[in-house]
Amino acid sequence: MTTVAAYAAPAAKAPLERTTVPIRPVGEHDVLIEIAYAGICHSDIHQARDGWGEGIFPMVPGHEIAGVVTETGPGVTRYRVGDRVGVGCFVDSCRTCAYCEQGLEQYCTRGSTPTYNGRDKNGEPTYGGYATHIVVDENYAVRIPDTLPLDVAAPLLCAGITLYSPLVHWKAGPGKKVAIVGLGGLGHMGVKIAHAMGAEVTVLSQSLRKREDGLKLGADHFHATSDPETFRQLAGTFDLIVSTVSAPLDFTAYLALLKTDGALVNVGAPEEPVSLNLFSLIGGRRTLAGSMIGGIAETQEMLDFCAEHGLGAEIEVIGADRINEAYERVLRSDVRYRFVIDTATLR
Amino acid sequence: MTTVAAYAAPAAKAPLERTTVPIRPVGEHDVLIEIAYAGICHSDIHQARDGWGEGIFPMVPGHEIAGVVTETGPGVTRYRVGDRVGVGCFVDSCRTCAYCEQGLEQYCTRGSTPTYNGRDKNGEPTYGGYATHIVVDENYAVRIPDTLPLDVAAPLLCAGITLYSPLVHWKAGPGKKVAIVGLGGLGHMGVKIAHAMGAEVTVLSQSLRKREDGLKLGADHFHATSDPETFRQLAGTFDLIVSTVSAPLDFTAYLALLKTDGALVNVGAPEEPVSLNLFSLIGGRRTLAGSMIGGIAETQEMLDFCAEHGLGAEIEVIGADRINEAYERVLRSDVRYRFVIDTATLR
Repeated sequence: MTTVAAYAAPAAKAPLERTTVPIRPVGEHDVLIEIAYAGICHSDIHQARDGWGEGIFPMVPGHEIAGVVTETGPGVTRYRVGDRVGVGCFVDSCRTCAYCEQGLEQYCTRGSTPTYNGRDKNGEPTYGGYATHIVVDENYAVRIPDTLPLDVAAPLLCAGITLYSPLVHWKAGPGKKVAIVGLGGLGHMGVKIAHAMGAEVTVLSQSLRKREDGLKLGADHFHATSDPETFRQLAGTFDLIVSTVSAPLDFTAYLALLKTDGALVNVGAPEEPVSLNLFSLIGGRRTLAGSMIGGIAETQEMLDFCAEHGLGAEIEVIGADRINEAYERVLRSDVRYRFVIDTATLR
Repeated sequence: MTTVAAYAAPAAKAPLERTTVPIRPVGEHDVLIEIAYAGICHSDIHQARDGWGEGIFPMVPGHEIAGVVTETGPGVTRYRVGDRVGVGCFVDSCRTCAYCEQGLEQYCTRGSTPTYNGRDKNGEPTYGGYATHIVVDENYAVRIPDTLPLDVAAPLLCAGITLYSPLVHWKAGPGKKVAIVGLGGLGHMGVKIAHAMGAEVTVLSQSLRKREDGLKLGADHFHATSDPETFRQLAGTFDLIVSTVSAPLDFTAYLALLKTDGALVNVGAPEEPVSLNLFSLIGGRRTLAGSMIGGIAETQEMLDFCAEHGLGAEIEVIGADRINEAYERVLRSDVRYRFVIDTATLR
């Protein structure tokens, strides 16, 4: 059995440590990827600390993976050795349900296979991107355009697609007023992408602390949600609000910021149920919705879009030995805006 | 000042009684309508009993009005004496905001003028359809096609358009699975209209008590929501669910009945805030939305659609002296499916 160097949480809530984990042999349709960079997503921390329960340990987190193909199975047609590729939040799905057939593998009826903390078709645990290598079916890898550096591309595989998909689905673009709630790892990509799509972009952040950043990233306006005046001033303004925060929002207040027919789409969400007055929706045919990452074809489209517009994540590159420290800083929102692990430091 | 015979609530919570109320002179663009029938909407009861506060008394309820034009102002171009017309939930709006310009007068930025329990441009109270006549600007009346009897047409002006509008907006039609929650005044029109649009229609009702009715009205399936098996069996089934009930639903359970990209649209709603787990939305890009009646042009479109498909409300016609009794029966859900007042009994 081949093993690779990795950083893993040996048990729930235990600090991550250097270890080795097995990778499967390169199968007919597999590619072996030498990982160059792996982003740290908030959900990595959540799962490594077993926040949702049922974690599989040891756990190698990481679903924002950028690297280079170093071996291909005999049936592989889409990639060659040397190709720059990415892997996102899932590495397989049933491929036959109505959603898989529509390219909505993230909503696969039978459940897509998570990149880590899941089990593959054979029941073996999956291990993520905090490692030197990963073996993935070629149909679940995407091509990273040459003009996108691998380090800033890595976070696009989760943070990028998580924002790109709802912005496309709910038609952000010229003439549309879009608000992004929360300027973190997800939110900062939302600002960049919505701006590149031609929308008029407003950041709604707790305070004005990140105002300068927000405007630099492409926002046209920046408002503090701690200021009640924000809600008075912006009533009925937006076609689309994408909320990236997991704090429970006052939905009645946020829905009032939408135009008639506007949508408030949650890509982050509190664990606990939220309270909502339905008249906030009825009074303006408004939508409260949710969205979860994106399908493979759409992830490719997103990478191509980002390359075309020169968009990558704002990152702080760290060595693997700083993962636990980075986790603490993410929890304090002390990162602008995404930690990316240089996986060369694992070798 | 001209007065007309009417039934009015003299004060909050007082029984309705026979009285007279003023109507304005027929202005340049007004039509005088001799009312033939007025439907009893649940919200009539709510307002007559001052459920939302700030009621204007005496109050003449009624916003499901069908009648005949008996006089026209000199500038009227759309109607002639003898034309069969209807009036719905509002009788004016600002006419200049973005929503009025799009034919979404129900969402007028400045607020549309309610048919009753509101104030017109001059600050005078508006009086509704439980009367022999009403004066309305021709732009806020709609034509009732000749093939639609006035009695079964009256409830279309609120119940009909309230269901038609979201069914069109969320694209009910052939190949779509649509559920209607609640089989009352609103719900029974939803079943008829969705069926006529070609959708596969399911009624979700508390019990199977109205099953036979539901199937006769056009439903393909009928399930009791008191049976947990319903939620197991129908998980992931619907493209669209329209809820007509004002009881607080278990939204997590109902959202699970939607396909990916499905929408649960509320046209009825509880007064109290509801509780909702946002992961119900995120896990399938689902929409929770609301919808409120429809615009004037869409109301005309709805009437034409109903005429084309031979659809009217299922009604029980009563004399005006039975309004108070009818209110009690509506509150007990003891009507199949709409009371309609024969306003000739007021004369």
